[in-house]
Amino acid sequence: MLVNCVAYTEGHKLADIPVEDISEYVKRPNCFVWVALKDPEPSELDRMQEEFGLHELAVDDARQGHQRPKIEEYGDSLFAVLQTIEIKDDELTLGEVDIFVGPNYILSTRRKTQKGFVDVRARCEREPHLLQNGSGYVLYALMDAVVDRYFPVLDELETALERVEEQIFVKNAARSNIEALYSLKQKLMMLKHVIDPLMEAVSKLSGGRVPQICTGMREYFRDVYDHLQRLHASIEGLRDMQTTAIQVNLGMINLNETEVTKKLAGWAAIIAIPTLIAGIYGMNFKNMPEYDWPYGYYLCLTAMVGFDVLLYLWFRKIRWL
Amino acid sequence: MLVNCVAYTEGHKLADIPVEDISEYVKRPNCFVWVALKDPEPSELDRMQEEFGLHELAVDDARQGHQRPKIEEYGDSLFAVLQTIEIKDDELTLGEVDIFVGPNYILSTRRKTQKGFVDVRARCEREPHLLQNGSGYVLYALMDAVVDRYFPVLDELETALERVEEQIFVKNAARSNIEALYSLKQKLMMLKHVIDPLMEAVSKLSGGRVPQICTGMREYFRDVYDHLQRLHASIEGLRDMQTTAIQVNLGMINLNETEVTKKLAGWAAIIAIPTLIAGIYGMNFKNMPEYDWPYGYYLCLTAMVGFDVLLYLWFRKIRWL
Amino acid sequence: MLVNCVAYTEGHKLADIPVEDISEYVKRPNCFVWVALKDPEPSELDRMQEEFGLHELAVDDARQGHQRPKIEEYGDSLFAVLQTIEIKDDELTLGEVDIFVGPNYILSTRRKTQKGFVDVRARCEREPHLLQNGSGYVLYALMDAVVDRYFPVLDELETALERVEEQIFVKNAARSNIEALYSLKQKLMMLKHVIDPLMEAVSKLSGGRVPQICTGMREYFRDVYDHLQRLHASIEGLRDMQTTAIQVNLGMINLNETEVTKKLAGWAAIIAIPTLIAGIYGMNFKNMPEYDWPYGYYLCLTAMVGFDVLLYLWFRKIRWL
Amino acid sequence: MLVNCVAYTEGHKLADIPVEDISEYVKRPNCFVWVALKDPEPSELDRMQEEFGLHELAVDDARQGHQRPKIEEYGDSLFAVLQTIEIKDDELTLGEVDIFVGPNYILSTRRKTQKGFVDVRARCEREPHLLQNGSGYVLYALMDAVVDRYFPVLDELETALERVEEQIFVKNAARSNIEALYSLKQKLMMLKHVIDPLMEAVSKLSGGRVPQICTGMREYFRDVYDHLQRLHASIEGLRDMQTTAIQVNLGMINLNETEVTKKLAGWAAIIAIPTLIAGIYGMNFKNMPEYDWPYGYYLCLTAMVGFDVLLYLWFRKIRWL
Amino acid sequence: MLVNCVAYTEGHKLADIPVEDISEYVKRPNCFVWVALKDPEPSELDRMQEEFGLHELAVDDARQGHQRPKIEEYGDSLFAVLQTIEIKDDELTLGEVDIFVGPNYILSTRRKTQKGFVDVRARCEREPHLLQNGSGYVLYALMDAVVDRYFPVLDELETALERVEEQIFVKNAARSNIEALYSLKQKLMMLKHVIDPLMEAVSKLSGGRVPQICTGMREYFRDVYDHLQRLHASIEGLRDMQTTAIQVNLGMINLNETEVTKKLAGWAAIIAIPTLIAGIYGMNFKNMPEYDWPYGYYLCLTAMVGFDVLLYLWFRKIRWL
Repeated sequence: MLVNCVAYTEGHKLADIPVEDISEYVKRPNCFVWVALKDPEPSELDRMQEEFGLHELAVDDARQGHQRPKIEEYGDSLFAVLQTIEIKDDELTLGEVDIFVGPNYILSTRRKTQKGFVDVRARCEREPHLLQNGSGYVLYALMDAVVDRYFPVLDELETALERVEEQIFVKNAARSNIEALYSLKQKLMMLKHVIDPLMEAVSKLSGGRVPQICTGMREYFRDVYDHLQRLHASIEGLRDMQTTAIQVNLGMINLNETEVTKKLAGWAAIIAIPTLIAGIYGMNFKNMPEYDWPYGYYLCLTAMVGFDVLLYLWFRKIRWL
Repeated sequence: MLVNCVAYTEGHKLADIPVEDISEYVKRPNCFVWVALKDPEPSELDRMQEEFGLHELAVDDARQGHQRPKIEEYGDSLFAVLQTIEIKDDELTLGEVDIFVGPNYILSTRRKTQKGFVDVRARCEREPHLLQNGSGYVLYALMDAVVDRYFPVLDELETALERVEEQIFVKNAARSNIEALYSLKQKLMMLKHVIDPLMEAVSKLSGGRVPQICTGMREYFRDVYDHLQRLHASIEGLRDMQTTAIQVNLGMINLNETEVTKKLAGWAAIIAIPTLIAGIYGMNFKNMPEYDWPYGYYLCLTAMVGFDVLLYLWFRKIRWL
Repeated sequence: MLVNCVAYTEGHKLADIPVEDISEYVKRPNCFVWVALKDPEPSELDRMQEEFGLHELAVDDARQGHQRPKIEEYGDSLFAVLQTIEIKDDELTLGEVDIFVGPNYILSTRRKTQKGFVDVRARCEREPHLLQNGSGYVLYALMDAVVDRYFPVLDELETALERVEEQIFVKNAARSNIEALYSLKQKLMMLKHVIDPLMEAVSKLSGGRVPQICTGMREYFRDVYDHLQRLHASIEGLRDMQTTAIQVNLGMINLNETEVTKKLAGWAAIIAIPTLIAGIYGMNFKNMPEYDWPYGYYLCLTAMVGFDVLLYLWFRKIRWL
Repeated sequence: MLVNCVAYTEGHKLADIPVEDISEYVKRPNCFVWVALKDPEPSELDRMQEEFGLHELAVDDARQGHQRPKIEEYGDSLFAVLQTIEIKDDELTLGEVDIFVGPNYILSTRRKTQKGFVDVRARCEREPHLLQNGSGYVLYALMDAVVDRYFPVLDELETALERVEEQIFVKNAARSNIEALYSLKQKLMMLKHVIDPLMEAVSKLSGGRVPQICTGMREYFRDVYDHLQRLHASIEGLRDMQTTAIQVNLGMINLNETEVTKKLAGWAAIIAIPTLIAGIYGMNFKNMPEYDWPYGYYLCLTAMVGFDVLLYLWFRKIRWL
Repeated sequence: MLVNCVAYTEGHKLADIPVEDISEYVKRPNCFVWVALKDPEPSELDRMQEEFGLHELAVDDARQGHQRPKIEEYGDSLFAVLQTIEIKDDELTLGEVDIFVGPNYILSTRRKTQKGFVDVRARCEREPHLLQNGSGYVLYALMDAVVDRYFPVLDELETALERVEEQIFVKNAARSNIEALYSLKQKLMMLKHVIDPLMEAVSKLSGGRVPQICTGMREYFRDVYDHLQRLHASIEGLRDMQTTAIQVNLGMINLNETEVTKKLAGWAAIIAIPTLIAGIYGMNFKNMPEYDWPYGYYLCLTAMVGFDVLLYLWFRKIRWL
């Protein structure tokens, strides 16, 4: 679905143009065309390939989707694949943004994303002194928007870890903790697979030999790279803490097992001692003088209770009960 | 066994040619010969070595099989070893594809693979504008086909992990989970050993100094490299989740142990208390007034049941039963 | 909040100058201006941006805070982000120091830090032969001060590990040990995220191509780098020991469980044997000669005690009790 | 002990020569001397140092033994240290092969190895077209022989892992599995320490700047490197599986513990219930009508058996027994 | 404390000289001064700084001590920090050796070390052909001595691991094993922190661009580097085995727990069965024919013993007892 198709010149919007005029505008000097598609049909992509003269392999990738994030050079144009992550009901959903950038055009297609990039276009149009840097600047603006949207997702995961951390030394929370930690791990892996390849790709736009389109924008792409590094470092940190949390959780489970065994042992002793005494006084020897004592029975009961009180106090002291 | 032996010129099939004419066609300008062997006999390889003038060490490798994936340069020709993986009844089987590529010939030999490369040849013949790139393009087409066949294997392993994940927090599934996770690990290692060295090798065809045969094909080999990177990242992700799943499984086993111990303790108490009471009223003291109460026995039974009901409720409350 | 705004020439303080004169002093040859801000308002930063001509992206970063440590070049000026760590009541708090350095100015802003850098300024003013190196030397002096303040934090964490190590083989300390180890891990991660990126950044000031501002100061920045390497190595060492300590702690928990089970088994046997004997002599067979023995009861009690003494000694011998 | 001392020219054996003539033959053009020593005495090495003019540090290393594998350049000569591994009665023994190579000599000394290199010499003499490459080719032939002898060792370790894998999910095999896995780990570490440094060293003979002696042999050394890479990858794979196997084994041990506890609980209940019933009917209340029932005793026994059958079936159903 | 202060020329000792003459001798051509200090006072270092013209930052480091091993260039002089490790009563103690090297002087200061370097000086003076290489050779000789002293420490740790390995599958040794393994880990970390940075530093003296002072000594420093690599590889190997040993130890602890539980279950059954029988024959039913059998009691005892013998044999068979 076509979202926008606009021509710009010297940082200002020229006009909304029909798709069939694209190839014409692209040829004009000092002019660039910015097209946005959403969940494009194959036929739309074919049309764009024709109008912009896109490389077969790049269009193939855009058609299939499910690529890993990357930035590839085809001659003097670039093909960037980015992934978006959106949270909904505690679930992460992956979307994809493919961007074709040439010296005087930019074509972005997004799939399976809720949130579009209208605000990016609006911001760019409000800052003509930056937009006149051309398609390289638009690429930056789109990437910056995609990357900035990762931060709330990361915050969510940090909060999830903190929730586990509050519960980790609490008894009987082991099962829910371990489930939460496994789910956290899955989400971290997802985020990692979105961010790490992109970080690697962006590093090529900010250091060493930079593609023609991005020259003069080096500081801006370095800024995106810097954000990705922060995300990367945070994810690695979360992964590390998550691993430790699983180990700690295992320790708490085993500690709890020991405590249960101690309780079992303590109460077993408290029941077994009077049972033994009762057994003794259930014996049938003829000559058992206690049987004839007038208060034998009561003495016996007292002894049972007495032993148990002592045992109970003892087990309290050694913290088994 | 010889599968095909065809000469091509300018992207079009010239003729099926007999093996003895190979060396002749190879000398013609603008012409290249594409030979496919299946489970070749040593004698066939010797014959090919002679016709194409292949390097001793490369033919040695092809003769022995069981190489690790690699791409080696011998002067202006290349020798590529790829491994195939096929699934059958939940088992992975390794096959091998060796490809000798010279400026005007390509010789592929496959071993222990079910599926051949007839469809690759058919596709190439349908696209003469690409096939006229010569042997470099055929090398790409073969590698692309081999690499594309890894994806369903990976999907299978992802499904296997998901099956475990569904069961991992279910009781009494620990044993089957751990078996499934170990088997998954074995398959992941197999896949990793097939993909990682190939990825390293292909990177040399797409970046930096590229062998003569592959110049002009750089974007195509980068595409293969990109697929291998996706596979690599997915395998690493699976390995990471598998490790976490084993830790979680261990946690669940220990948690289950605790629960069993709690149950044991709870029921032991419920049996031990009336046993103690019965013991007490089995004592033989002369003076035990309860014995003479008309409903002593029934009171006693009621007490037993009463204590047990209380205990049961208590253990339910603290979740031991 | 403005802390200081001073102009220096040839290593000596020229004068405290008002903010509005900064741009003027900056233009004078052989003169540099050193401004220090604390928890600056956005408006203050805007003012500074204007006076010094700072880059938009750098000021943006300083405005937002929460950056990861880094050193970035903008033309012939540098923008450095450092983080401070302060301990208070066993909690670590992060602060941030942003430093803008140009050939003849240095602007430092600190946020959320208790301790300022007045002593750094004082030391610099006492050593004019070093201060005449200009803004590069001031950058070094500030970085050196920030880095030196990490060492007491590290010492604190080393002490925390040592405290755990003293307790790790002590019984019943497992729970507090595991809590201490988890808390240590959190603090180590915090420190690592502060130090590692800074180390990476500083390495660029001491080796290879060095920014213009820092030439001639290479040995000094190498010294800072060396301190950061020591911190890094110590953190890695602590992380490694912490991981081992968690494993050892788990082993101790399980060992303790075994010891509890042994104790339970031992005492259970010591109670069960006389209970069995009592049971036997509670049987109602007509023909049980022991019943008629005059000392049958006492013999029986003696047998019970005798067996238990033997059992007790046996369990002591095999270290179950 | 001197094994061989032979002069070659143009790929053919010239003559067995006495040690004192070595320095003379070494000076002749187109001629090279190949000396093999076994467990050499210090005096023999001194003699060789003199005849060949070997570097002090290299001879020192050969004298002491216990070096790690390496290849060092001394001017235009090379000094290679390789380690051999031989299996005997399931034990691995390390040996050492030191090779001094100059433009026209090769001196190999082996220590603590059962198997010599006579077959290498024989093969070289059978292939004069290769042997005329001189000392570089002999170095390759010796290295190739040493490396090929690692494969059976690796196969042995793979078999050992497979044996464990067959037993790993079998009950009561945990102890022998864990012993086998530890022993496997030790052997893998040994192999790793032999192969990894050698791989690193050989890589310098096959890529980049190659020592004079080895030019023209690059493909051959690449072949050795390739074998070492295969060994390296297999060892890493085995190490990885071994780690997982230890974790799985731990899981099985804990699972088994749970099963034992379940069995204990089940049988305890089956014994405790009739014990309780017997206790009840051992009570001495006057008014217990069951006592007077003619078949009371038999009903009671039937009840005991009945409860136990039900319990047994229940425990079978929940898989505790 | 001044240990030695000697001037050398052309590899021979010229004279012991007083400290105040150092600066004079240093200026003479073909002459170098070698000074050794032990636990120097700040004032002594100040004196040396003056005499040799040492760099402020290097002297600062020497004054403070507790540096990590490093080799730094200051113009055409070098500053090396090495750490020594000495064993005493199973404890490791760290010492420090700081070496200042200029084209014609060498100043070594050692702290907290028992063993000095008199033997190094003696060996150097015995080998004038090497000593005439000047201060570079003395640096090598000192480093070689320090590094050689690490080997016995490593041997000690290897022996410690072997002692644990002998005990690791022995019952009831788990606690002492785990303590020994933790202590081993601590020592390995200490050694690693001494050796790894030094290895990194020495690599710069043996490859690539080498400082002026060390040219011509490359093979010698490579030898030191090689020793450090061996130490490094051994430490990594020990660390790896130590980790596995901790895991195995945990497995043994859990296995032992299972065995204890089995024993508990077995003996519990052996006591519970006769207790049950005794309970049954303690019942008070009127009509219990066994009570009147003349040998009822003896039959009953026989039945008890019989069941227990069978149970015992059964538990032996399934290895629970």
